[in-house]
Amino acid sequence: MNYNIAVIPGDGIGPEIIGEARKILDKVGAVYHHLFDYTEVLMGGISIDTYGVPLTDEALETAKKSDSVLLGAVGGNVGNSKWYDVAPNLRPEAGLLAIRKGLNLFANIRPAYLYKELADACPLKKEIIGDGFDMVIMRELTGGLYFGDRYTKEVDGVMTAVDTLTYNENEIRRIAVKAFDIAMKRKKQVISVDKANVLDSSRLWRKVVEEVAQDYPEVTLNHMLVDNCAMQLVMNPGQFDVILTENMFGDILSDEASMITGSIGMLSSASMNESKFGMYEPSHGSAPDIAGKNIANPIATILSAAMMLRYSFDLDREADAVEAAVEQVLKEGYRTGDIYSDGFKKVSTTEMGDLIAERI
Amino acid sequence: MNYNIAVIPGDGIGPEIIGEARKILDKVGAVYHHLFDYTEVLMGGISIDTYGVPLTDEALETAKKSDSVLLGAVGGNVGNSKWYDVAPNLRPEAGLLAIRKGLNLFANIRPAYLYKELADACPLKKEIIGDGFDMVIMRELTGGLYFGDRYTKEVDGVMTAVDTLTYNENEIRRIAVKAFDIAMKRKKQVISVDKANVLDSSRLWRKVVEEVAQDYPEVTLNHMLVDNCAMQLVMNPGQFDVILTENMFGDILSDEASMITGSIGMLSSASMNESKFGMYEPSHGSAPDIAGKNIANPIATILSAAMMLRYSFDLDREADAVEAAVEQVLKEGYRTGDIYSDGFKKVSTTEMGDLIAERI
Ligand SMILES: CC(C)[C@H](C(=O)O)[C@@H](O)C(=O)O
Ligand SMILES: CC(C)[C@H](C(=O)O)[C@@H](O)C(=O)O
Repeated sequence: MNYNIAVIPGDGIGPEIIGEARKILDKVGAVYHHLFDYTEVLMGGISIDTYGVPLTDEALETAKKSDSVLLGAVGGNVGNSKWYDVAPNLRPEAGLLAIRKGLNLFANIRPAYLYKELADACPLKKEIIGDGFDMVIMRELTGGLYFGDRYTKEVDGVMTAVDTLTYNENEIRRIAVKAFDIAMKRKKQVISVDKANVLDSSRLWRKVVEEVAQDYPEVTLNHMLVDNCAMQLVMNPGQFDVILTENMFGDILSDEASMITGSIGMLSSASMNESKFGMYEPSHGSAPDIAGKNIANPIATILSAAMMLRYSFDLDREADAVEAAVEQVLKEGYRTGDIYSDGFKKVSTTEMGDLIAERI
Repeated sequence: MNYNIAVIPGDGIGPEIIGEARKILDKVGAVYHHLFDYTEVLMGGISIDTYGVPLTDEALETAKKSDSVLLGAVGGNVGNSKWYDVAPNLRPEAGLLAIRKGLNLFANIRPAYLYKELADACPLKKEIIGDGFDMVIMRELTGGLYFGDRYTKEVDGVMTAVDTLTYNENEIRRIAVKAFDIAMKRKKQVISVDKANVLDSSRLWRKVVEEVAQDYPEVTLNHMLVDNCAMQLVMNPGQFDVILTENMFGDILSDEASMITGSIGMLSSASMNESKFGMYEPSHGSAPDIAGKNIANPIATILSAAMMLRYSFDLDREADAVEAAVEQVLKEGYRTGDIYSDGFKKVSTTEMGDLIAERI
């Protein structure tokens, strides 16, 4: 079949890692007889440099018309880059928020698991890691504080800033359904994270999540307060299967969760709408410091492409093949700098891509 | 001198640990010739059981009239306690929010550091711990999302919940000043945490913090995004001296920070107003599961009492004596169950209190 993929290399290491993901998709296409067509789209700093805005309407339209989107990373060093001397809605990250909203990508799926082969890089002790951990964070991505009304104005002569956190039951229900659906394919355990002892939005969250749970009698649902969850991730990550949470809590907790794996360069993510359309991107950022050096780890992006094959195109066999190739390369001892340690074979970004492609 | 302390034992292990803190204060009084008068105040679940509300006006008045407040812990097992079958503003934690607001305790100071003696309990690897870490989190405590307007209502037939995050420049300035003041007595490094790439309140936060920094040319100020901070705490806790942040971010990050120390039973906290008045409490919760068993660790509460001596009463020598006694007891190998490991001497709550008191 033919698939039309909008490719957004973005900034920093984005173009390099996207190059390797395309290499892998091309190999999958050749082996399994699919045709992947790529349409390049500018977003983030490079779009600012070219068009003066982080996302043009045309770019959003191109993404909308595609079968799904593959994204590298956007943004630079805040405070140390010309892109940040402007109003926030003109900065690189604003493009990311705009495309999420514009494509209605309300479900952000971020797996965080310990690679047995890379366990040495994990910042947690062996006793804490136990038999390893393997969780998926389901973060609501188009509601809450990051998309509410906001303003700054003088009130009685005092500058006052207001942000608004809004959720309605429909927004909560649709992300909860996605979380329970994923849990059904996993260990059937959902932990919903909120601050229901304080926030109205969290109480509505809890109520709706419990309603959705009625439709999934096989899934165990528990609730956890966000402050406690931030502790539990460090104390006992093995207890989590699926974490379901709202936008800002998900932002914070998913970054914490990916860091405790010790291999953030390995972690993929998907952001999906109601149907099978998604935007796929590595969990890590644009790493401007190492851009252009051919040393970035392309695996997170390659695994994001595998998620695309699975979730958007229903190409399970192909996704399996990519994931198996990644595992194989790790087993054979190949490592990019971020996951390298003594005794292994250090390879560049492009070499890593080649090695994985060869094994598909 | 005479000091009038409002004592709030609260729920769960609260009464037990408060008992030991009083034991220590009494010993300090005897040795250094002070008189500590205690007025017991009900708050939380026990106040609900007695008066039907988590904090009575009389209780708040008593606290207001005191020289400062010593608090155990409030609350029970959410979802497994009668205290939670009611509206949130009638639950135990509502008493805590009400007393913070009622006493204008806007500055929450939570130290998080690694006890060398207890480094084995730390969930982080030796390589990550390095030479240890020692940070103070300065959390704004009476503004932001936890105190904004909130409501839940039907909008076009859809239940919708709204919470509001508001900060004005005065609220930001006063907490920033406290953070810089503390930094001056420490390593002179402030990391201010926000989400300025998205939130208006965070952008105002950053602006005001930078203004305050002008008055402290010796202090180095850096900014960090909250999601990144959640990662950095796990990756490299040694980089932090003073973290300055708003209410909700502080809630999440301070719990994460205390957990990475591995000894949350050891960590104190202070919540202060503009002057020297404060409420002192352990960083941990009410631990209902182990209540009444005489096994809880009283050290966090004892160290909170020491903070009271130092910050509210200017009794530095007395505070030093308490902290030295705690250190001494640890060095001699005494441990409550939560910090016990093979080869040490396991003691009960009251024994731990006695041992510390004897060494003052
Ligand atoms: C860049 C920023 C707006 C974004 C977010 O917070 O959503 C990022 O941190 C992420 O998690 O994808
Ligand atoms: C009990 C709760 C309202 C409180 C808070 O979030 O402020 C607690 O978690 C804390 O950190 O003191």
